[in-house]
Amino acid sequence: MEKKTLLTDCPDSKGLIAQITNICQKHQLNIVKNNEFVDHQHGRFFMRTEIEGYFNDQTLLADLDYSLPKGSQRSLISAQKKRIVILVTKEAHCLGDILMKSTYGGIDVEIAAVIGNHDVLEDLVSKFNIPYHTISHEGLSREEHEEKMLAAIAPYTPDYVILAKYIRILTPKFVEQYANKLINIHHSFLPAFIGAKPYQQAFDRGVKIIGATAHFVNNELDEGPIITQDVAHIDHAYSAADLAKAGRDVERSVLSRALQQVLDDKVFVYGNRTVVFK
Amino acid sequence: MEKKTLLTDCPDSKGLIAQITNICQKHQLNIVKNNEFVDHQHGRFFMRTEIEGYFNDQTLLADLDYSLPKGSQRSLISAQKKRIVILVTKEAHCLGDILMKSTYGGIDVEIAAVIGNHDVLEDLVSKFNIPYHTISHEGLSREEHEEKMLAAIAPYTPDYVILAKYIRILTPKFVEQYANKLINIHHSFLPAFIGAKPYQQAFDRGVKIIGATAHFVNNELDEGPIITQDVAHIDHAYSAADLAKAGRDVERSVLSRALQQVLDDKVFVYGNRTVVFK
Amino acid sequence: MEKKTLLTDCPDSKGLIAQITNICQKHQLNIVKNNEFVDHQHGRFFMRTEIEGYFNDQTLLADLDYSLPKGSQRSLISAQKKRIVILVTKEAHCLGDILMKSTYGGIDVEIAAVIGNHDVLEDLVSKFNIPYHTISHEGLSREEHEEKMLAAIAPYTPDYVILAKYIRILTPKFVEQYANKLINIHHSFLPAFIGAKPYQQAFDRGVKIIGATAHFVNNELDEGPIITQDVAHIDHAYSAADLAKAGRDVERSVLSRALQQVLDDKVFVYGNRTVVFK
Amino acid sequence: MEKKTLLTDCPDSKGLIAQITNICQKHQLNIVKNNEFVDHQHGRFFMRTEIEGYFNDQTLLADLDYSLPKGSQRSLISAQKKRIVILVTKEAHCLGDILMKSTYGGIDVEIAAVIGNHDVLEDLVSKFNIPYHTISHEGLSREEHEEKMLAAIAPYTPDYVILAKYIRILTPKFVEQYANKLINIHHSFLPAFIGAKPYQQAFDRGVKIIGATAHFVNNELDEGPIITQDVAHIDHAYSAADLAKAGRDVERSVLSRALQQVLDDKVFVYGNRTVVFK
Repeated sequence: MEKKTLLTDCPDSKGLIAQITNICQKHQLNIVKNNEFVDHQHGRFFMRTEIEGYFNDQTLLADLDYSLPKGSQRSLISAQKKRIVILVTKEAHCLGDILMKSTYGGIDVEIAAVIGNHDVLEDLVSKFNIPYHTISHEGLSREEHEEKMLAAIAPYTPDYVILAKYIRILTPKFVEQYANKLINIHHSFLPAFIGAKPYQQAFDRGVKIIGATAHFVNNELDEGPIITQDVAHIDHAYSAADLAKAGRDVERSVLSRALQQVLDDKVFVYGNRTVVFK
Repeated sequence: MEKKTLLTDCPDSKGLIAQITNICQKHQLNIVKNNEFVDHQHGRFFMRTEIEGYFNDQTLLADLDYSLPKGSQRSLISAQKKRIVILVTKEAHCLGDILMKSTYGGIDVEIAAVIGNHDVLEDLVSKFNIPYHTISHEGLSREEHEEKMLAAIAPYTPDYVILAKYIRILTPKFVEQYANKLINIHHSFLPAFIGAKPYQQAFDRGVKIIGATAHFVNNELDEGPIITQDVAHIDHAYSAADLAKAGRDVERSVLSRALQQVLDDKVFVYGNRTVVFK
Repeated sequence: MEKKTLLTDCPDSKGLIAQITNICQKHQLNIVKNNEFVDHQHGRFFMRTEIEGYFNDQTLLADLDYSLPKGSQRSLISAQKKRIVILVTKEAHCLGDILMKSTYGGIDVEIAAVIGNHDVLEDLVSKFNIPYHTISHEGLSREEHEEKMLAAIAPYTPDYVILAKYIRILTPKFVEQYANKLINIHHSFLPAFIGAKPYQQAFDRGVKIIGATAHFVNNELDEGPIITQDVAHIDHAYSAADLAKAGRDVERSVLSRALQQVLDDKVFVYGNRTVVFK
Repeated sequence: MEKKTLLTDCPDSKGLIAQITNICQKHQLNIVKNNEFVDHQHGRFFMRTEIEGYFNDQTLLADLDYSLPKGSQRSLISAQKKRIVILVTKEAHCLGDILMKSTYGGIDVEIAAVIGNHDVLEDLVSKFNIPYHTISHEGLSREEHEEKMLAAIAPYTPDYVILAKYIRILTPKFVEQYANKLINIHHSFLPAFIGAKPYQQAFDRGVKIIGATAHFVNNELDEGPIITQDVAHIDHAYSAADLAKAGRDVERSVLSRALQQVLDDKVFVYGNRTVVFK
């Protein structure tokens, strides 16, 4: 007996839950857990179904394709460990947390490789017996550098590419290559403090809360569908450096949580929005 | 066209979602929102289905009863304002919040009456043109007093009875009368600080967080299925009185939230647990 | 024996705490509680001192003025109930909370009057035997309307003017009149979603957290020193209306908290920042 | 020029702040930051003073001792890295977080050694070039085992001993040896769910929030002065295993935070309480 997850994302219409669950029934599959959401404003239906039984993927998907309305997307995902590549620059906190959790429990993922535009974090990564590639951007145009990055990532065929404080802006070409597979941690509670030095911005504005945002990357800087966000309360006594330190704790936990949600196939992306099932 | 909510709570078995949604389909009803949960440990299935269409309640329920396994409970709830009776003693904060929100927006409920064992809050309630009954416990046995309370509540046929800081312990007789309809706000993060003076207990223990718990009342003091809980961070500088003040803010918001969840038919009770759908 | 609060705000220099506490000592006053903060970046010193004893205000302040550096501000505040005027438009939630808490416990303040540019909330205010003035803006220029508002507020000589969802923009003339005395609740986690319809903006951006900000009003729209902020977690299932409802709960509690902090003389304002002592 | 922190903890009396700050003044020391708290119920005064200047520790402390009331404790702490020994059993999450933060930023501490009653975590610790000692309890009486543990810890002369999920109960002898220097992370929101299997207990009780508590260890199981606590919201869909997983995230961050506060000399202990300055 196997366990798989069926993700359905289609134009809303009457009877969708019945249609999908009838097909599961017909295939003698048991639904272990089901989450459903309809975005009535955009007329879109989302369903995540954890299924148990003996699968004939081909006939199951054929039945679904026959039944579901035009413009539907569905995928049947086996319960196997996903593979990620992590991009970094110099900051260790998010990377370290993912390394620790993937090795000692907390996140069930295979880190295929870590790639940095600096070599600062090579030492950390080598402790975990994971390949580290330094691909310096120095002396290269943005396009040349990305070319090399893409070439380094490709052989690992990652399910997701995680920007764990990778601080270079990506070109549309790069983004398209990994559409809906690029996850970034932004060091602010978006859309506040877009752009550089958000902690200095936060300090200057005298805010009483700081935050972090994990989001899919699209072609707009600091835009892209938000997966999860969290905040920390701060006060007047925090310097900009204190803010950055408190911020790193929020970044770390927000990225971990978003990564977990994505790995669990709980996140749907559509337009600039996400549906994140519990 | 009408909108109703179908609540199903039954022993888990294969194909339940399909069965229920097929029946909706057969009745040409549209599912607007669906939440489902299976407690695999106890083998119990819970589903909350918001449905739109032209209802024939009798045949719909008959179809469900025919289809669902033995030991199932199902109810089809019309979208109409529910009625509550609120029991109080002397503290105004929870009562005031519910009065304000039911009158000026925030909670869609009809407060049929407020009943206190003191008359302190009569003035507040009268501002909102709601009947207030003072039923003093003085000179009465617990049974005699409850007899009077029950007699005062009964004519209002409330959907729920809310203990908004009603500080007397209820007898099993009272509790049975309103099984799964009695909601209490407890001034601690249960199961910490069970019993009297929780804020003094919290102060003595030197905790750094206080909380409040909204729960259904059963026959065990400070037991009963928990609906919702929340906390507030405190520090060494809080006196027991400061704790109580901070606690009132948590109590107020926790009770409001629990009440809203119950009024929205999002809460299932089974054993000592609840399922609270979003 | 009396209890007063001494607020000192001056350029930082060596020995300030000793100087101030020596003067208290010389006057045989006992320090019940002391909070101090130095903003090293701006070279500014803040101290809040709760003092007990027999006061000769004149000589105490003279001693302080003699001792403190040039450019110092100090005030000695008696422990007496402060007076506020509340400005509103049509929304009841923040107003209702302050009315309830000032009457039944939670905030120790005298609400001298409520003034609205609509009459919607007159009924609510009248329940609490507090004067309500409707000053419609219809047919008036902004200046004419403000003239009337200022004339209505002035006789009450409020310590603070609270904008409890008063949705009109104030001119510099109005703001100057009540510099550092005007407190607004903004329906977003500033600086995100500045301007109109922040909940629609939040919905469109697909954020996972919403917030509210209480701040002093200055001449820039949605700027001004922030007093306190808080947030609520939301998810994809929230419509813009749901966001607004969840937001009202945050607004209510944030404004209450900020008001309490200001009434307790715990808030210093300088430049675009605040120091808020615990 | 040096920077030191003066901690004063003494019976409350008039003029203490003036006395202490005058002595600093006399020694031409500058106060960079000052926090003060009086526990009026217990008549105890606490002050933490960050001082800058040229120190003559001996005369400074002599002046303090001459001036402060009987029963005072004061210490003058140099700004140098503190040393800890970490005790563990089999769980990596708290240990890993401290290893990562002490090596890559976040907590400024020297981990002198890690000691486990199992060897499971030796591999993790060795990655960071820190000594690991396995001291198995098998075949030993509790006293014999602790004897060996104490002997292993002693040569490192740690400032604090951190129980990072060390799951054996310590005898009074052990505790006395490191009075106010033993910090434990307890996997519940104390005082709820004292004792074994708190996550199973939490699951059985159907709570909607779980928590963790960092506290100094004294001779009562799961008692001892609380340093910091935090919580995570959970719902009906969490199994006991899910609770434990969510709990590990809270444990990790609570222990880190408590450790930081202790290392920053911000925590006073008295009786069963702590004062934790910001």
